[in-house]
Amino acid sequence: MDEILKAVLKRVRPSEAERKRLKKVANMLIERVNSTCDMLNVPARAMLVGSGARSTWLRSERDIDIFILFPEDLPREELEKKGLAVARKVAGKKGKERFAEHPYVTAKFGGFEIDLVPCYDVADAGKIKSAVDRTPHHNRYISERLTPELADEVLLLKQFMLGAGIYGAELKLQGFSGYLCELLILYHRSFKEAISAASKWTPSTIVDLEGSYPDQAEVRALFEGQPLIVIDPVDANRNAAAAVSMQNFATFVRACQDFMRKSNMRFFFPRRVKLLSKRGVEKILRLRGTRLFCIVFKSPDIVPDLLYPQLRKTERALVAGLERVGFEVLRSDVWANAKSIILLELTIAELPKVQVHLGPPIKVDVGDFVRKHLKSKRKFAGPFMDSSGRLAFEVERRQTDARQALERALVERTAFGRHVAEALAKGHEVYEGKGVVKLCGDRKIGEFISEYLTRCLPWYR
Amino acid sequence: MDEILKAVLKRVRPSEAERKRLKKVANMLIERVNSTCDMLNVPARAMLVGSGARSTWLRSERDIDIFILFPEDLPREELEKKGLAVARKVAGKKGKERFAEHPYVTAKFGGFEIDLVPCYDVADAGKIKSAVDRTPHHNRYISERLTPELADEVLLLKQFMLGAGIYGAELKLQGFSGYLCELLILYHRSFKEAISAASKWTPSTIVDLEGSYPDQAEVRALFEGQPLIVIDPVDANRNAAAAVSMQNFATFVRACQDFMRKSNMRFFFPRRVKLLSKRGVEKILRLRGTRLFCIVFKSPDIVPDLLYPQLRKTERALVAGLERVGFEVLRSDVWANAKSIILLELTIAELPKVQVHLGPPIKVDVGDFVRKHLKSKRKFAGPFMDSSGRLAFEVERRQTDARQALERALVERTAFGRHVAEALAKGHEVYEGKGVVKLCGDRKIGEFISEYLTRCLPWYR
Repeated sequence: MDEILKAVLKRVRPSEAERKRLKKVANMLIERVNSTCDMLNVPARAMLVGSGARSTWLRSERDIDIFILFPEDLPREELEKKGLAVARKVAGKKGKERFAEHPYVTAKFGGFEIDLVPCYDVADAGKIKSAVDRTPHHNRYISERLTPELADEVLLLKQFMLGAGIYGAELKLQGFSGYLCELLILYHRSFKEAISAASKWTPSTIVDLEGSYPDQAEVRALFEGQPLIVIDPVDANRNAAAAVSMQNFATFVRACQDFMRKSNMRFFFPRRVKLLSKRGVEKILRLRGTRLFCIVFKSPDIVPDLLYPQLRKTERALVAGLERVGFEVLRSDVWANAKSIILLELTIAELPKVQVHLGPPIKVDVGDFVRKHLKSKRKFAGPFMDSSGRLAFEVERRQTDARQALERALVERTAFGRHVAEALAKGHEVYEGKGVVKLCGDRKIGEFISEYLTRCLPWYR
Repeated sequence: MDEILKAVLKRVRPSEAERKRLKKVANMLIERVNSTCDMLNVPARAMLVGSGARSTWLRSERDIDIFILFPEDLPREELEKKGLAVARKVAGKKGKERFAEHPYVTAKFGGFEIDLVPCYDVADAGKIKSAVDRTPHHNRYISERLTPELADEVLLLKQFMLGAGIYGAELKLQGFSGYLCELLILYHRSFKEAISAASKWTPSTIVDLEGSYPDQAEVRALFEGQPLIVIDPVDANRNAAAAVSMQNFATFVRACQDFMRKSNMRFFFPRRVKLLSKRGVEKILRLRGTRLFCIVFKSPDIVPDLLYPQLRKTERALVAGLERVGFEVLRSDVWANAKSIILLELTIAELPKVQVHLGPPIKVDVGDFVRKHLKSKRKFAGPFMDSSGRLAFEVERRQTDARQALERALVERTAFGRHVAEALAKGHEVYEGKGVVKLCGDRKIGEFISEYLTRCLPWYR
C-alpha cells in the first residue's frame, strides 16, 4: 500500500515551483487588496485562506481564495458595498460578481481561479454574522496545527475522495469538503489511519477533535439524522460534515473497506465513464425494459447550490406522486447546466383499470365512505371485507398510464422547488423511452445519461 | 324495526305442525337407537342435540342430530365399532358413513338430514376425549336456559347471520355456529340487544357468560389473534367463536352497524348473486384490465373441513410467491366441489428485465455480495449506493411474466397444503384471462366467478 500512496502523492502533490508560483500570485493579490483598501480608505485587510494557504491543494485544484476582513462593527450594507468595490478594483475587467450570503468577485488570474470574498473579522467563531466569517477561523485552526507531513496525508485523502466521486461540499455533490479532509487527518494523524477508522464507520459516527462534548447522546440529538458528525473545532454547534449525504457517506465507508481489502491506484484515479453512443443508449434502454422519462427545461437563473436542492425536491415530489398512484419508480436522478433534467425510470408504467380503495378500520363508522362509493359510476365491486377486516371497494383508476400521471403532476406542481416550478411552468419537454436518445446530441447530457445507465462505484469501473 | 323482525320471524320460524313433525321423527329415531342398543347389548343411550332439541332451527334447516352416548370407560376402538354398528342398523341401507374425529352415519329420513353420532358421555366437559363429546354438554347448557321467547330471538340472529353470508362454523365458511348464536342471545337477552352491542365490537371482543375470567388481559393472551372470544360456558378453555375469521367478524359488525342505521328485510333475505353470462364475464374482465388466472384441478378426496384450509394455505403461498418476485395480486379466492379452483387476479403481471438487488446495510462486509454480482452476466448496473446508503446492483430479472412465475411455483409447490400439492402434481390446468370464460360452462363455477367479479356485502346487492 505504501508504494501506491507514494505514487499517488507524486502525481497529486504540486511541485515546489508550482507552490511558489501560487504563493507569489496570492501575495501579489494580497498586496493589491491591501493597497486598494488604503487607497479607498477602507478599514480592511486581506487573508489567504483555503487549501492554498495550507499547502493542501491538489495539483488539479487551481484555486486561490482571498478573504477581505472587515471590522465587526461595520454595518452589513457598508461591508457589502466597500468589499465589492475593493474586490472589483483588484479583479479589474476580468472580475465577475457572484452571490452567496454576501456578494463576492471571481476572476481568472495567472492560471488560477481567484475568489475575492469580503467578510467580517469576528473574534469569536461562535458569533459570526454570516457563514463566510467562519473561514478565517478555519484557516487559523488548520494552519497552526498542520505540519508539512500531515499536509501530504491530506492530499492523499482528498485525492481518494476525488476518486470516489465524493469530494466537494457543494449541494450539487453533497460530499466531503477540503476542510473536512483536513480535520479527519488532524484527528487520525495519517491517511492510512483515517481510511482504517472510516472502514468501520456506521451512520451517525462522531468525530470530536477538541472533545467539546462529553456526552455522545447529546451530539446525536443535536445533529440528528446526519450520517457523519464532525464537530467543527472553531464552533462546537456546527457539524463540519453536515453536507455529506447518506449516499456519499456510505460510498466513502465502502471505498475504505474495499481499499483496505485490496489497495489499488484505481481508487485514486478511476476510469472515466464511457460515453455511450446513441445506439448504445437505445440498446440498453431496450434491454432494461423500463419506461424512462426525461423532463427537460431551461434552468432557472440561480446558483447550483440553490438549483440542485430544488431539483432534488422536485424529483422527490414527482417520485412520491407517481408511487402514490401505483407507478413504481426504479431509479431517478437530476442534472443541470443551462438546461435542467429530471430523469425518472419506471418499473411499472401501466396499471389496470381496477383499483382497490380501502375504507377505515372497523371501529370507524363508514357511512359516508360507503355512500360515496356505492353510487359511484366508477365502482367495479364492493363494498366487501378484505381478509384483514377492512372495508374495500374496487373502483375505476383515473390514471392507468404513468405519462398521464406525470403530465398531471407537472401541471399541479405540488411540493416542487419554487424556481424549478416557475421554470417548468414557462415550458418543458418530456422525452420518453427511445426519444431520450435525441437528448444525447448534447455531449454533456450524453455523459449524464451514460453515467446513469452504467452507474457503478468509480473504483469498480 | 319491530315490524321487520315480526315479519322475519313469520318467515323463518317453523310452524307448530313442522315442529311436531321433527319431534316425532326424532323421538322415533331415539327409540330405534335405544332398542337397537338393547338388542345388540350395547351400553349406550340416544340424545337429541342441536337446534332440533332446542327449537332454534330455521325453517330452511332440516337437520336432526342424534348423539349416541357411551360410558366413559369404554375403549375408543369399541366405541367406534359398536357406535357404528348401532348407527348403521338404525339408518339402514340409506345410511352413509362419514368421518370426523370418529366415524358417524348420515341418512335422509322423513325429509330431514339425520346425523347419528357416537360419542362419550363425559361428566366433566373439560375432560372430553374428542370434540363431539362436548355436544351433549352444550345441549344441556342451552336447553336449561333457553325460554321459547329467547328461542325466537335466536332464530332472528341465525337468519341475520345467514343473510350476511356468515352463518356456519365449518372451515369452508369460517362463520358463526348455531351454538354461538344461542350463546350471544343468552348473553344479550334479545336480537336487538345483541345487534346493538355487536355494532360497537372491535377485534378481540370478549363475551364471558359465566364470568369465568376476572382478568380480560388473561383472556386476550389465551386466545390471541382471535377477533371474537366467546368463552364456552361448558369449557372455559375453549373459544366458542374460534372459527370466526377476521373477515366474517368485520362483516357481522358492519352488518350490525348498517342495520342499526336503517333496518331492512334485505339484511335477512338478500338478493341472490346474479349469474353473469359468458359475455358478461368477458366484458367485466376486459373492463378490469387485470390478469386473472384460475388453477383448476381434481379435488383431493378429503372432507371440506380439511380441503378448504389447504386450498387457502396454497392460495396464500402462491400470492406470497408471486408478490415476492414483484407481481402484485389484487385479490384471490378458492372454491371447490368435485373440482378445486384457486383464483388469482394480478394487478401487475409483466415486469421489466431490470431489477434492483439491494445489498446488506453498511455495517456488513459485502465482499461476497459484490463479487457474486460483479461477475454476473445478468448485471445491468452497479454496484452503487442508493440514497439510503445501501449497496445496490441492477440485474436481470429471471421472470418477467407472471405466468412463468406461476408455473414455476406450481412445480415447486413450496408451503402448499399437502393433499392439494399432491392433487396439483397429478395434473392441473391454468386458465387465463378470457380463457376463464370456458370454465363458466359449469353452472356452479359460473356462480363462483360471478360472485367473485361482482363481490358485494349481501345487504348491498
